[in-house]
Amino acid sequence: MSQDIIDLLRSRGVEVKEIAEIVRELQRPYSPTLTILECMEAVESVIRKREVQYAIMTGIALDVLAEQKKLPYPLQEIIEKDEPLYGMDEVLAFGITNMYGTIGITNFGFLDKQKRGIIGQLNANKKNHVNTFLDDLVAAIAAAASAKIAHQCRKLSR
Amino acid sequence: MSQDIIDLLRSRGVEVKEIAEIVRELQRPYSPTLTILECMEAVESVIRKREVQYAIMTGIALDVLAEQKKLPYPLQEIIEKDEPLYGMDEVLAFGITNMYGTIGITNFGFLDKQKRGIIGQLNANKKNHVNTFLDDLVAAIAAAASAKIAHQCRKLSR
Amino acid sequence: MSQDIIDLLRSRGVEVKEIAEIVRELQRPYSPTLTILECMEAVESVIRKREVQYAIMTGIALDVLAEQKKLPYPLQEIIEKDEPLYGMDEVLAFGITNMYGTIGITNFGFLDKQKRGIIGQLNANKKNHVNTFLDDLVAAIAAAASAKIAHQCRKLSR
Amino acid sequence: MSQDIIDLLRSRGVEVKEIAEIVRELQRPYSPTLTILECMEAVESVIRKREVQYAIMTGIALDVLAEQKKLPYPLQEIIEKDEPLYGMDEVLAFGITNMYGTIGITNFGFLDKQKRGIIGQLNANKKNHVNTFLDDLVAAIAAAASAKIAHQCRKLSR
Repeated sequence: MSQDIIDLLRSRGVEVKEIAEIVRELQRPYSPTLTILECMEAVESVIRKREVQYAIMTGIALDVLAEQKKLPYPLQEIIEKDEPLYGMDEVLAFGITNMYGTIGITNFGFLDKQKRGIIGQLNANKKNHVNTFLDDLVAAIAAAASAKIAHQCRKLSR
Repeated sequence: MSQDIIDLLRSRGVEVKEIAEIVRELQRPYSPTLTILECMEAVESVIRKREVQYAIMTGIALDVLAEQKKLPYPLQEIIEKDEPLYGMDEVLAFGITNMYGTIGITNFGFLDKQKRGIIGQLNANKKNHVNTFLDDLVAAIAAAASAKIAHQCRKLSR
Repeated sequence: MSQDIIDLLRSRGVEVKEIAEIVRELQRPYSPTLTILECMEAVESVIRKREVQYAIMTGIALDVLAEQKKLPYPLQEIIEKDEPLYGMDEVLAFGITNMYGTIGITNFGFLDKQKRGIIGQLNANKKNHVNTFLDDLVAAIAAAASAKIAHQCRKLSR
Repeated sequence: MSQDIIDLLRSRGVEVKEIAEIVRELQRPYSPTLTILECMEAVESVIRKREVQYAIMTGIALDVLAEQKKLPYPLQEIIEKDEPLYGMDEVLAFGITNMYGTIGITNFGFLDKQKRGIIGQLNANKKNHVNTFLDDLVAAIAAAASAKIAHQCRKLSR
């Protein structure tokens, strides 16, 4: 199933490597020698978790249904416009980060505000696509992978 | 918007009064004189919160889309069959209960396992309807309203 | 460090096997052939997680300090009397269960209300001991171990 | 009790106004006309919540006990040195922010990494004081007050 999720992310314009780049940037202050390959492995290990896969599938389905104008009113407008107080995109994302302890959650909060790398691109690309859930899911995967590395390295990680 | 949410719940077979009955049963050991009217007020106050309304709208939209077979594979099957390890129904529900402190979360866990009153009926009525999200949302609203009453009563509540 | 935590729990009257018995009871409906040994392994795997160990150490330290009357007023009284709206005991417990997904959290809510086995004994033994944090920690470890087994078994688990 | 909590924070070097300044800085992009008085009111409303008060009391008690070398080994060292993977300081903080919805949690993650204003000072002032819990509690109060204002303003807030 992992490969299906990787394909699903790719179909929405997100590569594992792009998520791994956020992870490396986030962890660099604590692990200067961390390679992009190690970060990709951490991202893939996050994606292997079943609840992570379900969160990704559910969030992307809602984005796609919003693009196809298939959601009921007023949810259609709320998700289409990425209404700032909607919050369910973050709620699904916490379903991912919670499983990686407190570092996962604080990393997510930081990425969500900073909109780094691919997350910022997804958030900006609102012309042709609805990425209301996707940008938060990507931030959550990156935050979780960073937390995983932080715990492995037993190093400063916040 | 509160009335829209009450109407939406009713369209799925759930009355505010039925949720209030779960609240009263849950709080009776601590507040024996609690009336159904007070419980209905607590339920309605929960439903007035914007993030609660968004969680309800999103969950019910997914249930309805699953009934209409409009979700992508394999999410369609997972939600249709209420796959026990799916978890996103509980994740949305925590989006509601989290805002009512720890009592909200423990009450939810209890109701989710006990399937009392309307929650059990929703869970059982799987022939013609998909209620994968709805039963957890109702449990979450009842848990939140109970927590609200518990905090107001400053009484034993767990 | 795992052994230190097991010793710490034992010094407060809790054996791994007693936690494992709650796990088996909780999972029996879904995994009838589950052995007490498998449950003990699941409990020990939970206890090997660093954030779990920190939660246990912190909660037990607060219980012991309350027994020794070393906490500042009014916290001393609140923890000593297990004030029902205190909530920080559950907050630490969620630090454990969150890492095991939604099943961990709902299981905890259920155990917290049911007070099964050793949890009920700890909760009842208020004469000579302060177990305000300990009963919730034990419930959280049992809930987490059950969630772990549920995910492994891919079976009905709520 | 609110005044007791304000006094307790002051005894540890934190004024309501300093927390309010973080709130104003955080909300300025969305509410440019927000006054420091409105931010102080939001901070005080957060501090009036009972579970918030309990989190503050518990965290500060652990900081003070660590300063007095009264915690058991190895918790004494872990809290004294603000061991980065400890995480219970963030867990208590989530007990505060959770009640203010997703914006509260993401704001906290951001502040926790940025260490703005008084939070950075607390984090830096490690010579004579243990502020392991306090800096996270202050970040959590500021994050919660910001979320409250964001919801009131119905404006962009992330």
